[in-house]
Amino acid sequence: MKTMEGEKKISSAIVRRLPRYYRLLQRMREQGRERISSGEMAQMLNLNASQVRQDFNNFGGFGQQGYGYPVETLYKEVRRILGLDREHRVVIAGAGNIGRALSGYPGFAQQQFRILALFDVNPSLVGTKLPNGIPILHIDDMADYIRDNAVDVGVLAARRSVAQSIADTMVEAGVEAIWNFVPMDIRVSVPIENVHLAESLFVLSYRMQEQEKKIQK
Amino acid sequence: MKTMEGEKKISSAIVRRLPRYYRLLQRMREQGRERISSGEMAQMLNLNASQVRQDFNNFGGFGQQGYGYPVETLYKEVRRILGLDREHRVVIAGAGNIGRALSGYPGFAQQQFRILALFDVNPSLVGTKLPNGIPILHIDDMADYIRDNAVDVGVLAARRSVAQSIADTMVEAGVEAIWNFVPMDIRVSVPIENVHLAESLFVLSYRMQEQEKKIQK
Repeated sequence: MKTMEGEKKISSAIVRRLPRYYRLLQRMREQGRERISSGEMAQMLNLNASQVRQDFNNFGGFGQQGYGYPVETLYKEVRRILGLDREHRVVIAGAGNIGRALSGYPGFAQQQFRILALFDVNPSLVGTKLPNGIPILHIDDMADYIRDNAVDVGVLAARRSVAQSIADTMVEAGVEAIWNFVPMDIRVSVPIENVHLAESLFVLSYRMQEQEKKIQK
Repeated sequence: MKTMEGEKKISSAIVRRLPRYYRLLQRMREQGRERISSGEMAQMLNLNASQVRQDFNNFGGFGQQGYGYPVETLYKEVRRILGLDREHRVVIAGAGNIGRALSGYPGFAQQQFRILALFDVNPSLVGTKLPNGIPILHIDDMADYIRDNAVDVGVLAARRSVAQSIADTMVEAGVEAIWNFVPMDIRVSVPIENVHLAESLFVLSYRMQEQEKKIQK
């Protein structure tokens, strides 16, 4: 097995597939499976087997011809590659619907993303706690909080008009990545992942309409 | 301007860019802008101008060399292409964190996606209403409700173990599209859009780790 230094440059298409492998391996592991073939993984993920094999070759292999992959080893390796083997410390800017839903999102805690606090300006929210105990603090205190608590991930769930400036504050205060739920392009010097719900909904709407046109023909 | 029938087959890359054009045009329109050039759109969306022009050519043009695009015409056309010029009727399966957050998501109503009801099995939720008045009903009544209320979009926010069977019920009862928030691949005969939060989070984690490796070098 190659070491970190031996890994090839990974394409963004593979990076997008990695979470799906991880999810599948997690499930196989829970079910007590010891080995899994590239063909089976491919079938379950709607990929083709040679692509699966090629993807894992990029990380230095693991498989043995005809025996499939060892689930536990592969799971741990994918987890390490994804950086999920260590805790992340998270704050959320915006305690509206999205911010609050995210703070109750079980996927966070399961994957060692620990939400420490939400930040907002709404006086009826600031100073209160969510049912799960997470405090809502004033946005003006966010930068200090990030520094004092070694926060490494900032979640943007604030209004569009303030989102860029909150992102700038987060990065200045030391976050290493931003998870953005605000429907706009935020420019920062750290990695950023966008979840644009409206855009996903628009694509769905488009595809419904295309489907209807097909049926009408 | 070409008619619907004259439109070329649109690639999925363009379909993914359309919501971003739509969002930008919506903003320009709110600001009272009458014309916008491909160069300006390109800059605001981090694309290149020739790509923007090419995309709009796919829908039959609209631009006039040197004058830019008329904002209102282009906005309406993109809205029509996206199928956002008519109302959609939506139910959500699963009244947990995600389901409830979505039901309060302002983007829905703004874009004529009207949420009629949530469905769940939890006896402490079924029969209650959300603060915004949307009822939570029993999942066993979902199929009839979909038929009786001409629901055309089903949102999946249920547990993984029941998600596929709920999706099947939705499609049988007549929904034309599914918006899926459950972290698994759902197989249905209608258009489906997936919002996999955990996967987005994993990609973010991966990119943070890559960034740290770069800095250490």
